Parts: sequence; structure tokens; C-alpha cells
Amino acid sequence: MNKKSSTPLKVNRQRRLPVPKSTGPLTGSTSNLLIVGSVAFDSIETPFGKVNKTLGGSGSYFCLAASNFSRPSLVGAVGKDFTNKYRVILSGKNIDLSDLEQSAGQTFAWGGKYSFDLNNRTTLFTKLGVFEQFKPKLSAAHKQSPYVFLGNIHPSLQLEVLAQIKKPKFVGLDTMNLWIKKAPKQLAEVLKKINIFIINDSEARQLSGEHNLVKGAKHIMGMMGKNATLIIKQGEYGLLMFRSSPSFQKRGLGGVEIFHLPGFPLEDVTDPTGAGDSFAGGMFGYLAKADNISWENLKRACVAGSVLASFSVEKLGTKRLQEITARDINKRFAEFKKLTHFDSR
Amino acid sequence: MNKKSSTPLKVNRQRRLPVPKSTGPLTGSTSNLLIVGSVAFDSIETPFGKVNKTLGGSGSYFCLAASNFSRPSLVGAVGKDFTNKYRVILSGKNIDLSDLEQSAGQTFAWGGKYSFDLNNRTTLFTKLGVFEQFKPKLSAAHKQSPYVFLGNIHPSLQLEVLAQIKKPKFVGLDTMNLWIKKAPKQLAEVLKKINIFIINDSEARQLSGEHNLVKGAKHIMGMMGKNATLIIKQGEYGLLMFRSSPSFQKRGLGGVEIFHLPGFPLEDVTDPTGAGDSFAGGMFGYLAKADNISWENLKRACVAGSVLASFSVEKLGTKRLQEITARDINKRFAEFKKLTHFDSR
Repeated sequence: MNKKSSTPLKVNRQRRLPVPKSTGPLTGSTSNLLIVGSVAFDSIETPFGKVNKTLGGSGSYFCLAASNFSRPSLVGAVGKDFTNKYRVILSGKNIDLSDLEQSAGQTFAWGGKYSFDLNNRTTLFTKLGVFEQFKPKLSAAHKQSPYVFLGNIHPSLQLEVLAQIKKPKFVGLDTMNLWIKKAPKQLAEVLKKINIFIINDSEARQLSGEHNLVKGAKHIMGMMGKNATLIIKQGEYGLLMFRSSPSFQKRGLGGVEIFHLPGFPLEDVTDPTGAGDSFAGGMFGYLAKADNISWENLKRACVAGSVLASFSVEKLGTKRLQEITARDINKRFAEFKKLTHFDSR
Repeated sequence: MNKKSSTPLKVNRQRRLPVPKSTGPLTGSTSNLLIVGSVAFDSIETPFGKVNKTLGGSGSYFCLAASNFSRPSLVGAVGKDFTNKYRVILSGKNIDLSDLEQSAGQTFAWGGKYSFDLNNRTTLFTKLGVFEQFKPKLSAAHKQSPYVFLGNIHPSLQLEVLAQIKKPKFVGLDTMNLWIKKAPKQLAEVLKKINIFIINDSEARQLSGEHNLVKGAKHIMGMMGKNATLIIKQGEYGLLMFRSSPSFQKRGLGGVEIFHLPGFPLEDVTDPTGAGDSFAGGMFGYLAKADNISWENLKRACVAGSVLASFSVEKLGTKRLQEITARDINKRFAEFKKLTHFDSR
């Protein structure tokens, strides 16, 4: 152990903690955050390592990230092969698995291989297994969830889940190029009913038909309801968050408020799998914990999400998400501030 | 005139001004900033317009941007065809042209055409004219300049200029892929003698042989002197600024301090020509005015540079740089802060 690594705690304790403190302890028995997403066995090959049949899927990454702030409930499906070895990774982080449906058949399995610079990914195989027949059904308690994230599944399924929620307060949505192309009507329908849409830049261009991202964002927000928030992810470059509301019409950039956050500049990225899901999980975990959807808190939640995403890519699969502590998160939150802030004078 | 545009002044006046106040008036007869760069006649074609034989060149963009903060001196060469019509655009902004050498022959002329999305540029013609024989010679007064920017010319010429400066305080350098490939030894020599190097991401990868930008930055800073500062521009995504110093070894990101600033999210970009030179000019004008090269002031100077670059691309050629006022600059400086800042809690 060198001297440098033996002293950081003191520095860290002096910093204000980004973890929201308004609604009780970090973990507990109640959950106000619901995620519908996949649980999978991933086989991943990158230039820096290889792993077989490791815990993956959007729901797993989301919940492992969110569990640092609140107790997420995971709605999804697994097969008989989803043994206790996998289950405890999630339940050990106080993730509510009571609506994780286990049935005969195989757990969804995915295999992928990354190019030398991690910019391109080839899917080696996809075995949907029990996920193919998945029809999400929420228990009575989960129908009361105020914070809901609709992971990347068919927009019709997303609508079915949303219809079961009694009084949603803040609903997030993920999608992909496949649904933009194959189910535009259903996607348009679900877009009207949600509060925040998280999409990447190429998908935003595809959906809006606009090359310019500000124009594209306005177009997409026009498809959404009042006070819609839109996040356009730009890979390693970070993200742009847009919000339109009557009070923003009078100021800001042409009727919208814009926030930018860079990706955390890492020297060693090992595996980009699940970075987007870790971002969404960190963001929604933070929002649900604070129970605050103001523009200022949405910005902080973006930082929390980006912190989790930056940890997620440091090791293969969900390994790094399983290791990190509140101290790690607080330290990187503070580093994000140093990275982006300047004094006016 | 609509109601919206009739009231912004009030809002603006309430904001603190980013223009540094420490060293006297915005304009004056003395200059502490020197730039060696090209003055050219540009012919530009973009999907949004076309202009022939308009004032261009790195030195022109740099000085027009810098002149908002301090009085830059332009070292360069023009031909007999550089009539008063062009000269007054620069001198009218209080730019010192006493070392702008005029000789028989033609002014450097360049023609370029941009692709539909402005991401690709084709050079239609380059006529070096008097610039081909250009050997920069500084007057006695300019040899005393503390702030110096060496525009993108052959590294041997950059070394010749630098050798004429008596006591440089802060020297900036621009270069291009051509010199990285054709004059690596001379470039390495000049790199050891300067304080800040401004380069784009593809050039940084080419020079360092590293795909990862943090690793690449460390490699390049290793080629520079002590306390070197490096800016890697990422086009529309903004920039990363790196600084290495003994005090940074103990904290920050692996021995370096990093600052990120996004590009300003514009809905309408008309002409990217000169954006990089406008950035450098805004940055150095700000630094020379404040006469402060602390890390905090370098960050503010990056914002000033990015503000000028964002205006520069709004209209064809240098047109927008000729129009903008201190009020425009202050307003956008404040918008940059709204775009990037978040509260810890």
C-alpha cells in the first residue's frame, strides 16, 4: 500500500456528500422506484478481458446502480437456471425481487464482442428464453410506485406496464432504433405519457429527422407532454438534458433550458456494456431517494447517473457496480464538479 | 419588435460581468499580446451561404476575437491587394497592425466548401502569395510582449518568432497534422518552450499514438516543459483542458487536473471557418487582459474563447465577430454557466 492511497479518506470527509438525505436511510424495506427491464446471462469479450455467463441485462445494471441511493423493485423474468448465486448479487444489494418472475425455461442470454477501441460491438448471440413470453404483471404494492422506469422493451409492453401504475409521479423511458423503425405509433403513444425520455444522439436524429441536436430535441419534446424532459446521450462525450416549460419560454436558449455534463475522463475503460442502464439507474435512484424532480435536482441526478456509469465501465460486466461504496460515489461526484465548474470572477 | 426581445437588457445587467477588470480599459494604445498568423482572402461555400474574397486567416479571426478583451498585435504578411477596405476591419477594432508587413504580390487566398452537415470541408484552392516568403520580424516594442500566440505555421518559423521575444510570460501554440507528420523534430523542440498547446482530438491521437485522450494528454504533456497546459478540442463537443504540476500529483485525476467545457449548443451553425482561431483569440485576449495564468483564470479564459468561437460560426466569415458587443459576450458567458453548473445539494 503506498502513501497516496492511505490518506484520501480525510480529504473526502471534508466534502459535502451528494447522496440525498431527505427521505431516510439508504436502504430499507419499502420501495418507491420500479424498473421493468431484462435480467440476462451475458458473455462479453473486450480487448481487455473476457467473461462468460455473468449477471447482465438492463434491469440488473439499473438496479445495482439505483441501489446506492434507494431500494428499486425489479420487474422482469428469469428461468430455472437463475440460481441463488445470481439472485444474491441483486438481493444482497437490497433490491426488491418480489416481482421478478421465475418460470421454466432459460434465462435471457446475450453474447457480444467489442472492437479494439470499444466503439463497435458485434452481437454474437441472443437467446430470449423466458423473456420472449414475458408479460409484466405488477403486484398490488408495486402499482403504487411513484417513480417508474420503462426499460428498453417493445413500446406496447411499456404501455401495458404504465397502465397498471395507479398514480405515477415521474416516469422514465428508454428505447432503441428497432422500435423507432418498427413501432413508431406505439412509441409516439407512450412518449405522450412519460416525463423523461433518455435516448442517444443517433436515435434522436433518427426519431426527429434533424441533424442538429437542439432542433432535434425541440422536435422530440414536441411529441411529449407538457414539462417534458429529454436526455440525449453522446457516448464518451457525455449528455445534453433539455427541459421545456412555460417559465423557460421567457429565458434560456430559445424556449428550452439546457444542461450539459461530460463523460468522466477515464484512462482505462474495460467494458461499455450497461453504461446507459447504469446511468438511468443512478439517476432514478437519486431522484426517488430525494423525491424531488426540480430542474436543479434533475441536474444533480444526471451527475449521480454519470458517476455510476463511469464506474460501471471500469470492469467487465456488473463487477465494478457490485464493489463500489458510498465513499467512491461521493469522491467521483466531487471530481465531476471540479471537472465542470468555473468561477465567474 | 416583439415583447421578448425588448427586455433582456435588464436581466443582463443584473449578472456579473466576465470581462476581467484588473488592468484598465478594454482598448488602448499599448499591447501585451502578440499573434503570428495568416491574413487571407477567404472564399467560403456552406449549405447556408456563399461569400467571396472576405477577410479571413487565422490571425484575423484571432485578433477580432481577442480585441474584445485586450489590444492584440498582429504579425503577418499581406499583399498590395490588401486595400483599406480590409485594413479598417482590423484597425477599427483597435488591433495593432504595425507589424503587419505589406509587400508587392498577392495576399494569401483560400477557398473551401463544406458538406451538408458542415462536418467535412473540401479545399478548393490555396494561393500562398506573399505568405510563401514570410519571415516574421518583430519590432522592438513587440519583442517585449509577455503574451504570445504562435499560430499554425511551420514549427521552424514558430521557433524563429519565439527566439525574438525577450521575456515571454505565457506562450500558446497551434499546429496541424501536416507538421506533426513532416516536421516532428522541430515541433518537439518548440513544444518544450511553450506554455499552452491547443490541438484537436485527432491531432492529439496522431501525435501521442494513444487512442484514449487522457493517456494521450499525459504523453503530450510529457513532451512539454514543467507546468504545461494542454487543450484538446473536440469540435462541437467542446474541449478538455489538462494541466500537470507538482501540486496536482497528489490529487485530481491521476496526477493531472482536468477541465471540460462543452461547445455552446447552437441551433444554427452557418460557417465553422475560424472557430479554432476565434477560440484561441478569445482565450488569449482574456488572459492578457487579466494578466493571470492561474488554473481558475485559465478555465474562465476557456469560456471566453468558447463564447467567441460560438459567435464566430453564426455567420459567414468574420462577419459575426465584427458585430458582437461586450453585452453579447457577457450574456453568453452567463449562459455557459447555466449550461454546465450544478449545485452539490
